[in-house]
Amino acid sequence: MISLLIPAIAFAQQETAMKVRNWRAAREATLLTDYKAFLSIPNVAADTSGLKANAQWIMDRLRTNGVAQTKLLYPRTPGQAPAVFGRVDVPGATRTIALYAHYDGQPVDSTKWATGLHPFKPRLVEGSIMQGAGLLAWDVINKSVDPNWRIYARGASDDKAGVFSIIEAYAALRAIGKTPACNLIFFFEGEEEAGSDHLPEIFEQYKDLLRADAWVICDGPVHASGRHQLVHGVRGDTRIDLIVHGPRRPLHSGHYGNWIPNPAMELARLLASMKNEKGEVTIQGFYDDMLPITAMERKAIAAIPPVEKQLQQELGVRRPEREMPLSEAIALPSLNINGFAAAGVGAKSSNVIPVKAEASIDMRLVAGNDWKRQQDKVIAHIRAQGFHVTEQEPTDAERAAYDRICQVVRSGGYNAQKTPMDDPNALRIGRALDAALEQPAIRVPTLGGSLPLFMFEQILGVKPITVPIANHDNNQHAENENIRIGNLWKGIEIFASIMTGF
Amino acid sequence: MISLLIPAIAFAQQETAMKVRNWRAAREATLLTDYKAFLSIPNVAADTSGLKANAQWIMDRLRTNGVAQTKLLYPRTPGQAPAVFGRVDVPGATRTIALYAHYDGQPVDSTKWATGLHPFKPRLVEGSIMQGAGLLAWDVINKSVDPNWRIYARGASDDKAGVFSIIEAYAALRAIGKTPACNLIFFFEGEEEAGSDHLPEIFEQYKDLLRADAWVICDGPVHASGRHQLVHGVRGDTRIDLIVHGPRRPLHSGHYGNWIPNPAMELARLLASMKNEKGEVTIQGFYDDMLPITAMERKAIAAIPPVEKQLQQELGVRRPEREMPLSEAIALPSLNINGFAAAGVGAKSSNVIPVKAEASIDMRLVAGNDWKRQQDKVIAHIRAQGFHVTEQEPTDAERAAYDRICQVVRSGGYNAQKTPMDDPNALRIGRALDAALEQPAIRVPTLGGSLPLFMFEQILGVKPITVPIANHDNNQHAENENIRIGNLWKGIEIFASIMTGF
Repeated sequence: MISLLIPAIAFAQQETAMKVRNWRAAREATLLTDYKAFLSIPNVAADTSGLKANAQWIMDRLRTNGVAQTKLLYPRTPGQAPAVFGRVDVPGATRTIALYAHYDGQPVDSTKWATGLHPFKPRLVEGSIMQGAGLLAWDVINKSVDPNWRIYARGASDDKAGVFSIIEAYAALRAIGKTPACNLIFFFEGEEEAGSDHLPEIFEQYKDLLRADAWVICDGPVHASGRHQLVHGVRGDTRIDLIVHGPRRPLHSGHYGNWIPNPAMELARLLASMKNEKGEVTIQGFYDDMLPITAMERKAIAAIPPVEKQLQQELGVRRPEREMPLSEAIALPSLNINGFAAAGVGAKSSNVIPVKAEASIDMRLVAGNDWKRQQDKVIAHIRAQGFHVTEQEPTDAERAAYDRICQVVRSGGYNAQKTPMDDPNALRIGRALDAALEQPAIRVPTLGGSLPLFMFEQILGVKPITVPIANHDNNQHAENENIRIGNLWKGIEIFASIMTGF
Repeated sequence: MISLLIPAIAFAQQETAMKVRNWRAAREATLLTDYKAFLSIPNVAADTSGLKANAQWIMDRLRTNGVAQTKLLYPRTPGQAPAVFGRVDVPGATRTIALYAHYDGQPVDSTKWATGLHPFKPRLVEGSIMQGAGLLAWDVINKSVDPNWRIYARGASDDKAGVFSIIEAYAALRAIGKTPACNLIFFFEGEEEAGSDHLPEIFEQYKDLLRADAWVICDGPVHASGRHQLVHGVRGDTRIDLIVHGPRRPLHSGHYGNWIPNPAMELARLLASMKNEKGEVTIQGFYDDMLPITAMERKAIAAIPPVEKQLQQELGVRRPEREMPLSEAIALPSLNINGFAAAGVGAKSSNVIPVKAEASIDMRLVAGNDWKRQQDKVIAHIRAQGFHVTEQEPTDAERAAYDRICQVVRSGGYNAQKTPMDDPNALRIGRALDAALEQPAIRVPTLGGSLPLFMFEQILGVKPITVPIANHDNNQHAENENIRIGNLWKGIEIFASIMTGF
């Protein structure tokens, strides 16, 4: 009886979803073998030829799957990784949707990966390696594939999973003879993890080629509750590196200890001055500039399922840094120590006063923040702590003139972006997404993470919408990055649904 | 006229000194070639076979130079580096002097050494590489050798220079036909930089073999003024490693930043709580237990030439950590961050919340301090800052029970040692040292550095005296360790003078 109430369009979509699922089920081993090959190509910013090899792989993959119009889009600035572009025109279609993912990954330190794993030697694992799951030989995929298995490699989830799901969704539609509802633009970026510094150049240069009614961004994880989410905004991001300088040469800590100042102690004191015990950033004006949260957003935030207890248990953390739900915390600008270093620790430590102490800090920004202004606030704070601030190595004259010297290295950055929750394209994409899911996707005003989405609005004039597919515990940006295979499969179904439902 | 007033013994010593100098001058290239071979043998604690190869080299060197009685002294605990023992009996001698140096070096990180340098590929440099001096080809030594040249290698100054100078001093005396004034014991340790944990076992086991009237320790640098020094005591030393634990897996700083606590920030706050801006350690009771400084010591400290301005200029440091002369600062117990680390920095940083943050801390101790008690004070302080302290990886139950968790790793340690400034053997060694110098040696109550000299007193019943020979800017314990060749030459003359003047 109930089935009679389902509208015809939903029926059609369910049928398509089933066919896509069957198509995938019949070729899981082939898909995973191909995905493994893709993940084996190193994709870090420092390795330009690796990035180009990735772009070429993607281009070949698009062509193999019937996307005849393809092109590598290079920015004007030479020496950069290209974006891979593809286009499918659907006769009679009145709308165009653009699908974005990025193929570059965060820097890697292979020594930190678990035994048997390597960022660019993808391994199949029975489950989460952090929970003790064992490695599997790749040839087991020829028998059957468990969706709870995972693939470990840099980019496995962030964001080659996006690239692969989007292309395979189109391959599936083509194989089952289903025409997309709209024209398709494929766009795969190669420098997202390096800050997308040249994406504006590409957008400016290829504005006409990239004209679309909507842009869907596939990046980031699904909600920690396991449910999929439709994300209407992202935080902005910027970074600053601090180097506190000590004596010109490393000093024996016995002969000079407690007489020559230790830069590690000075940096520790400086960092400690930036936050209080309640996790509030104490840098002057840090929370200024924030735009108020709308009533609709507030309601959406309240409807996000609580994941705090689950996360705290999973992560082995008893107390959150801030006494508020995670979804409220990510509505604020943040300051986070990515890492710090001075001389060696443990077996690599010596009894020295280090010559310098370094920290890398990233800041997430919300609507209203400006990334350069946020950097300026940090620098003003450093000065207020009694440091001379320089953007170069200190000179002899500076060493002679100042008690404390902190060198700062400003990275680039970008501001937050938000698409209104009642935007018609957002609503349409949300319906297509829901059609591929057992439970409707959670509507999220902003993701905690960052993407340079502001430039879609600014240059292309389109408000983007984000549809993540990766498991939430994917270790993206760190060692042991992984994708749960079931999430990759679901990603294919989702994008097939969006291509046919938009 | 003045020469008539010089006592006969001083005459004889001057004559010996001149002959030793001539002997050395005639064979500088050979000596340096041999020293280079010695420095090429890796001598870090982790490399047991390297340490044994060093011991064998020393043993062979002693034998080649006529020390027939030699022996490798192993502690009872298996797997340790041996001490190299040698003995020369002088007919009719009533006194025995033991000469100590160590052949092991601090851990190395070859990537931190200057371009062209490597810890175990000794290089000859025109002067200080930090001041821009250039590398020299080794074969230039066959023409002539400038005493201001330096040799760069791990152990070049700390403390293979001691081993080499002592052995060559005896070789020189033998070559010029001069009999030592006393019986000689050579003793070269192989685990000083690892804390001399098994030296007590060796002392206990070979107490009879090691009986001497005085022990002279050759280690550490000459005074920063360039003058030689006679050192009556050393600070004790102990270490503690701190590991603040964060989330079980590295987290994306956008999705979790400012909600999951960051262990790097927690460690920064903990370290910052240990010292105030005046450089005073704020750990409760840290300066308790110190024995008062004697009037004689106070007088000696006042007579030490000021080096503060010179050091501040040389090191590029405008302000000392404590507003007192260096010689007063090293009369206090100290706390120093040897290094800290969390995830990556600079090009190696990613936008993550690290899983842990580590710091290694060393503490120097003065007479009256006990190394275990000093560690306990630090641990009590960590608890007082709200941390649960464990000596293992935290368990799931601990993670669920405590807001903040700090794992501590206690290293071994030893207490300070002091020989009274009017000790008769100390006075005798001081006179023999002065006879080899243009200016009398500075009398120093305690060295800032540490050696496990307490055990000489405790087990062997002898109050040791330290005679350093290395240039003060030798970068010991760090990258670019070096010895100024003139200091090596002077070391040979000094030990020849002590052997004939004691």
